[in-house]
Amino acid sequence: MNPITTKLNVDNLIMQALQEDISSEDVTTNAIMRESRQGKAQLICKQDGILAGLEVFRRVFEILNEDTKVIFNFKDGDEVKNTDLIGTVEGDIRVLLSGERTALNFLQRMSGIATYTRSVADLLEGTGTRLLDTRKTTPNMRIFEKYAVKVGGGGNHRYNLSDGVLIKDNHIGAAGSVTKAIQMAKDYAPFVRKIEIEVENLKMMQEALDAGADIIMLDNMSPETMKQAVAMARGRAETECSGNVTKENIQNIADIGVDYVSSGALTHSAPIMDISLKNLHTI
Amino acid sequence: MNPITTKLNVDNLIMQALQEDISSEDVTTNAIMRESRQGKAQLICKQDGILAGLEVFRRVFEILNEDTKVIFNFKDGDEVKNTDLIGTVEGDIRVLLSGERTALNFLQRMSGIATYTRSVADLLEGTGTRLLDTRKTTPNMRIFEKYAVKVGGGGNHRYNLSDGVLIKDNHIGAAGSVTKAIQMAKDYAPFVRKIEIEVENLKMMQEALDAGADIIMLDNMSPETMKQAVAMARGRAETECSGNVTKENIQNIADIGVDYVSSGALTHSAPIMDISLKNLHTI
Amino acid sequence: MNPITTKLNVDNLIMQALQEDISSEDVTTNAIMRESRQGKAQLICKQDGILAGLEVFRRVFEILNEDTKVIFNFKDGDEVKNTDLIGTVEGDIRVLLSGERTALNFLQRMSGIATYTRSVADLLEGTGTRLLDTRKTTPNMRIFEKYAVKVGGGGNHRYNLSDGVLIKDNHIGAAGSVTKAIQMAKDYAPFVRKIEIEVENLKMMQEALDAGADIIMLDNMSPETMKQAVAMARGRAETECSGNVTKENIQNIADIGVDYVSSGALTHSAPIMDISLKNLHTI
Amino acid sequence: MNPITTKLNVDNLIMQALQEDISSEDVTTNAIMRESRQGKAQLICKQDGILAGLEVFRRVFEILNEDTKVIFNFKDGDEVKNTDLIGTVEGDIRVLLSGERTALNFLQRMSGIATYTRSVADLLEGTGTRLLDTRKTTPNMRIFEKYAVKVGGGGNHRYNLSDGVLIKDNHIGAAGSVTKAIQMAKDYAPFVRKIEIEVENLKMMQEALDAGADIIMLDNMSPETMKQAVAMARGRAETECSGNVTKENIQNIADIGVDYVSSGALTHSAPIMDISLKNLHTI
Amino acid sequence: MNPITTKLNVDNLIMQALQEDISSEDVTTNAIMRESRQGKAQLICKQDGILAGLEVFRRVFEILNEDTKVIFNFKDGDEVKNTDLIGTVEGDIRVLLSGERTALNFLQRMSGIATYTRSVADLLEGTGTRLLDTRKTTPNMRIFEKYAVKVGGGGNHRYNLSDGVLIKDNHIGAAGSVTKAIQMAKDYAPFVRKIEIEVENLKMMQEALDAGADIIMLDNMSPETMKQAVAMARGRAETECSGNVTKENIQNIADIGVDYVSSGALTHSAPIMDISLKNLHTI
Amino acid sequence: MNPITTKLNVDNLIMQALQEDISSEDVTTNAIMRESRQGKAQLICKQDGILAGLEVFRRVFEILNEDTKVIFNFKDGDEVKNTDLIGTVEGDIRVLLSGERTALNFLQRMSGIATYTRSVADLLEGTGTRLLDTRKTTPNMRIFEKYAVKVGGGGNHRYNLSDGVLIKDNHIGAAGSVTKAIQMAKDYAPFVRKIEIEVENLKMMQEALDAGADIIMLDNMSPETMKQAVAMARGRAETECSGNVTKENIQNIADIGVDYVSSGALTHSAPIMDISLKNLHTI
Repeated sequence: MNPITTKLNVDNLIMQALQEDISSEDVTTNAIMRESRQGKAQLICKQDGILAGLEVFRRVFEILNEDTKVIFNFKDGDEVKNTDLIGTVEGDIRVLLSGERTALNFLQRMSGIATYTRSVADLLEGTGTRLLDTRKTTPNMRIFEKYAVKVGGGGNHRYNLSDGVLIKDNHIGAAGSVTKAIQMAKDYAPFVRKIEIEVENLKMMQEALDAGADIIMLDNMSPETMKQAVAMARGRAETECSGNVTKENIQNIADIGVDYVSSGALTHSAPIMDISLKNLHTI
Repeated sequence: MNPITTKLNVDNLIMQALQEDISSEDVTTNAIMRESRQGKAQLICKQDGILAGLEVFRRVFEILNEDTKVIFNFKDGDEVKNTDLIGTVEGDIRVLLSGERTALNFLQRMSGIATYTRSVADLLEGTGTRLLDTRKTTPNMRIFEKYAVKVGGGGNHRYNLSDGVLIKDNHIGAAGSVTKAIQMAKDYAPFVRKIEIEVENLKMMQEALDAGADIIMLDNMSPETMKQAVAMARGRAETECSGNVTKENIQNIADIGVDYVSSGALTHSAPIMDISLKNLHTI
Repeated sequence: MNPITTKLNVDNLIMQALQEDISSEDVTTNAIMRESRQGKAQLICKQDGILAGLEVFRRVFEILNEDTKVIFNFKDGDEVKNTDLIGTVEGDIRVLLSGERTALNFLQRMSGIATYTRSVADLLEGTGTRLLDTRKTTPNMRIFEKYAVKVGGGGNHRYNLSDGVLIKDNHIGAAGSVTKAIQMAKDYAPFVRKIEIEVENLKMMQEALDAGADIIMLDNMSPETMKQAVAMARGRAETECSGNVTKENIQNIADIGVDYVSSGALTHSAPIMDISLKNLHTI
Repeated sequence: MNPITTKLNVDNLIMQALQEDISSEDVTTNAIMRESRQGKAQLICKQDGILAGLEVFRRVFEILNEDTKVIFNFKDGDEVKNTDLIGTVEGDIRVLLSGERTALNFLQRMSGIATYTRSVADLLEGTGTRLLDTRKTTPNMRIFEKYAVKVGGGGNHRYNLSDGVLIKDNHIGAAGSVTKAIQMAKDYAPFVRKIEIEVENLKMMQEALDAGADIIMLDNMSPETMKQAVAMARGRAETECSGNVTKENIQNIADIGVDYVSSGALTHSAPIMDISLKNLHTI
Repeated sequence: MNPITTKLNVDNLIMQALQEDISSEDVTTNAIMRESRQGKAQLICKQDGILAGLEVFRRVFEILNEDTKVIFNFKDGDEVKNTDLIGTVEGDIRVLLSGERTALNFLQRMSGIATYTRSVADLLEGTGTRLLDTRKTTPNMRIFEKYAVKVGGGGNHRYNLSDGVLIKDNHIGAAGSVTKAIQMAKDYAPFVRKIEIEVENLKMMQEALDAGADIIMLDNMSPETMKQAVAMARGRAETECSGNVTKENIQNIADIGVDYVSSGALTHSAPIMDISLKNLHTI
Repeated sequence: MNPITTKLNVDNLIMQALQEDISSEDVTTNAIMRESRQGKAQLICKQDGILAGLEVFRRVFEILNEDTKVIFNFKDGDEVKNTDLIGTVEGDIRVLLSGERTALNFLQRMSGIATYTRSVADLLEGTGTRLLDTRKTTPNMRIFEKYAVKVGGGGNHRYNLSDGVLIKDNHIGAAGSVTKAIQMAKDYAPFVRKIEIEVENLKMMQEALDAGADIIMLDNMSPETMKQAVAMARGRAETECSGNVTKENIQNIADIGVDYVSSGALTHSAPIMDISLKNLHTI
């Protein structure tokens, strides 16, 4: 993760997570360890997967104590195997104990998303279809989860409602027509925005293309209709398919030839990757 | 969720999540819908499950516009079936469009946790063993996730490092002995804290009991040893078993007779429950 | 201004501005007016111009006291003349006195930007060139200033570094070539981003077009070269001209036929519009 | 700017401005520059003027990365000429690219205010009248703008409503009389506050002097009346003249002999000073 | 307390105090009272004293639930006797239970300060000396404590380091002389600030008067010297005496004739006033 | 104070206190001391007492300038005598002047609480009764005040409403009976919480013991009844006595044999300990 992003938009979320876990003090550690003593622990994989969030893991400890040394044998995106030694954490043993859970909560979740994303993206290998995430992220975790998707080989859809235009049926209804909706969006939105619109049939598809949509989301269409829509769009707009994407059906979607397939499951239902901080000992 | 909790510790997290999703403005909606118009939508189950987080869902819309009316046909903890109409949301259609994703992101995740927790807790039905969560929650989501566990029929372990004492092997090492560690914790911690300690064998078990531990976590023991430990603890302390609890092995753990079994998977790996806001229309 | 935007991203900045002006209490008003008494004042134009920020003006008073009534005879974007009565503010006279300066500081600045933008945009009337703002906004005022530009008839360039790609010479240098830079941006950026790149000559222009840039900023080119560049881009990409745009030279830029001209002066050097709250009296 | 002020009341505003400009990440820079590389750029004047805000400029980069080296050839208050090399910035080139706009937005605005203030203050050179700012500052920019006025040779009026007493006609009306208003303010306000009151005629002037006002603002008086008022005040109170001060009429105001003249234009309508970060190159 | 002050600078501190006391939830109340039920309680004096902070007390409950009704039989500054019924609180009984401690913590402390201040101020009754507070307040409680001093009949010294000039010996040393220090302060400080300086002997006193100090703090002088200093200052500056003021010696200080005597004990050592919320019952 | 606690939950309160005292700038110091110069001062006891808060004192200066050197001759909990040299502070003299008051406000209050607590705790020396604090702390100062109690030899009761269960008469009324209230609390509260309940007579006492309460607070009982209650509880639950504890009557309470006596006065009415920063001089 870029250190500027970390400074501006990640450190505060890590701090907030630490305060969630230590609302007054780590009472056990403070009861027993009154003085600083140096310790070291190993970060170990408990299952195979793709790592994501190593720098976030590091920051948790650095925020607690900037002298903590976190050394990694891998980097984000690397594939690791069960029992692999990912790295070591060395510093005031109280920092290691107080930060362990929060650091792992970030790393396990991010790596879980990267791992799951990679497994889905691999199914699209060699097709012209690219895998995207959605806005179905955990509240206040988007910056971590979208990053993890990218690490896992997926692409990012819009970050939020402010940085991408996506015209849905209610917008079209309010505007009066596909054409009018696209025109209003072009007039209003910053000119650097691509205009995406959701269409449900080939008539809307044609209208969207003629009105100059940049991206067209194919909603609720049969595979046959989608194929026709994709053909119509070729060279004029990009196409996206969303909704109920599973590992089982994703190949079929790719066969249809859409440019992008987006899946909420990447962020909302990936199980964590099991990673553990072990063998903590004084040095 | 209690309205005082909401006011003090939930509203700010909802606001933060909304700002994450709308960092400047909802550009699509603002482009097309310049004026307020009333709309209504239905909240519909897309799969069977246990609801949790309805009040959080409601607050998302109320925070955007206090005149939004959210009416529920169910309450937290209720079991719902695929296609059930959970409730309706009525208000400025722009509020419904801008708040939908954030509201669902909370509700789906919380209901997912409640649903999964219920399915695990059911396996312990009739045994003397109670299911607990852990601190393996999503960063900055603990208040939602621990609540969802309770709604699903699980119990809460300590909230964080500040409100519960749990002495681990490194603490014991630093203190010098089980007895000394327990004594230091009793001297230091607020007197309303129970003292929990992790032990690995029957010798430590005996020492912990003699030193007056309130709860003893059995770590890395064979089922046979755990049974002996449980017998030793009877009437003197409560016992907890943690680590790698699965639906498959949880019955065995209950057979051992521990008082509590805690499972990180409840919060870190429950898939979301699919719920959807449909049929949005002007009224 | 959309009420959702206001709730999420404007109210907090207004609150902050009020706290800047009242760090403990309004000592004069509190010294003399111990009790609430109702008052009313008139919001009056002191010069001709375009109004922008009326809802922000209203919110300042509503945040201090939600019972304050602010009634407007105009709306954002309206042209007003010196001495026009823009509206009235009615409520606790202490609220009117304590909020006046902050409310006017927002309204005057936003209206000043709208007024200046309109005067520049008028010069482009009938040409195919559209006026844009830049990121040269006052720190922590961007949401207000970009809104005011739009009210004045200008368009918005990217909101910030996160929601738009703009490849500059240093990026090109780091990437190795125009082609590589565009490719890297396409691979990395969320797929809803248009890719803009800055080019200095026709060779770079050609390369940018071939690599699939969406928008091309023409930097440091002679009018003649710019014309050629615009011709090359036609139908393949949009063109933008920036830097040192003045009322005097803007017509020439439009003659060249670029699609967009962006001007930092809209936000960084527009003088305020003189507006005043007068005739405050008890009622 | 004093480092303590910076730490307590400036750093947070700079951080907020950076987050405004980078709400998730600098997507262009992160797309292309994955690794740190050292770079250097020159800070160059594009017009003559007075510098203000150099330390703020420096902090922007230091906050992004504390190892950034910013070296200045000038200091705040120095007069510079077009093409002068103000200084250099050296560090991770990504920091230079991500921070450039925010750093310049501060420096240009502050230097613009200092430059304009100096040009007005120079007109008062040799008179007994001193130039002051007002509370007509940009919301959430007051600490920067009041500092810039001082750098430009102006004086500061009260910082906000909490740290200065200024009794206006509505206060007088509520109190019942000039005398009563002044008495109430003296009774209530912290005793370190000077009491300023706005008067419209010589009768009020006399009453204000007799009641012990420290400063008297002459409002809406003819030059002749003002002269009389100034004579009455001599040795008993200071006098201030405000409202519609222009470079054209300021000499006349000075001739009247008021002690202070305050001008909102210093902060609300000074155009920025054109300064640019050029020649960024890797080193 | 003025509602504007409350909105801008008090509500956030009350919220913070409530979050300090309820970091996740009021576990006892939530365990037992799942539903809202109306209740009422009486606010009763447990000792004689002067009330201060009633509006703060009210806000605590209103912030938890805006429908809570708090009715008072007294107002700030009123003298009450042991067993007096100060008022009643009516609303959701959970709100009354959760807010009680925080509301009382504010009210008891503020009333304690007002009570103690009144007892000291009474000793100065009829003298020309006025009692002042200092900056020796509890961290993050200043707005409440300075208000309570005023309610108790004391006056406020400067609010903080930003809104008052007080030149101490180290400043004089750095400036080079009393005269230079006063001149530097006059040049730099906003012109609405009075200049106060601390002097230790009559020579410094004379220099301070000649340099135009507005207030002179007499430090470490014998009563005899102080009397001389007061005589010198008459008609030219105000005098203040600080340090080790006790109820026993305050009369002597008044006899010396200083204009102001400031006492840190008002805020740092006043015991609380015992007030209690009793007879809570459902209605 | 543990550095992790400081980082997460203390530094922000110190920063807030500094901003309370310096809302824009330290105007006196900035007027006179434009440049950094090194200075040194002595921290000296002005009365006998127990020190608490030395690390907080240090952090105030370090937060203003990390290069400030604070050296102590004592540590928290040490008994000091009037005129003892506690330590020295060395650094930029402006930092020393700007931070002095805030640093002392923390240290004096915390040491005052420790001193008073020690004097009360000494009276319980040799008895089986331990002294506890309450939630009657100064708003937003709890973390400092509870720490000071512990330094003074007292124990901590629950930190807040979230981390301890204390069932009062209104809870019992709402639940229906002592037994039901205890059962509901056990069902709901995290299992690491001890259950405390307030009882008023021996019948309630018996019911509470039978229902499995962990701690029983004896409310409003005669000494005779308390003795019986204590006897009943022996070996089954701990007992606590609260309310109107004074130095005069505390011995009697201890004689009764309760395990804990809690006193609000420790935090709400301890006078500060007089400590002073003297002999500031340049070096």
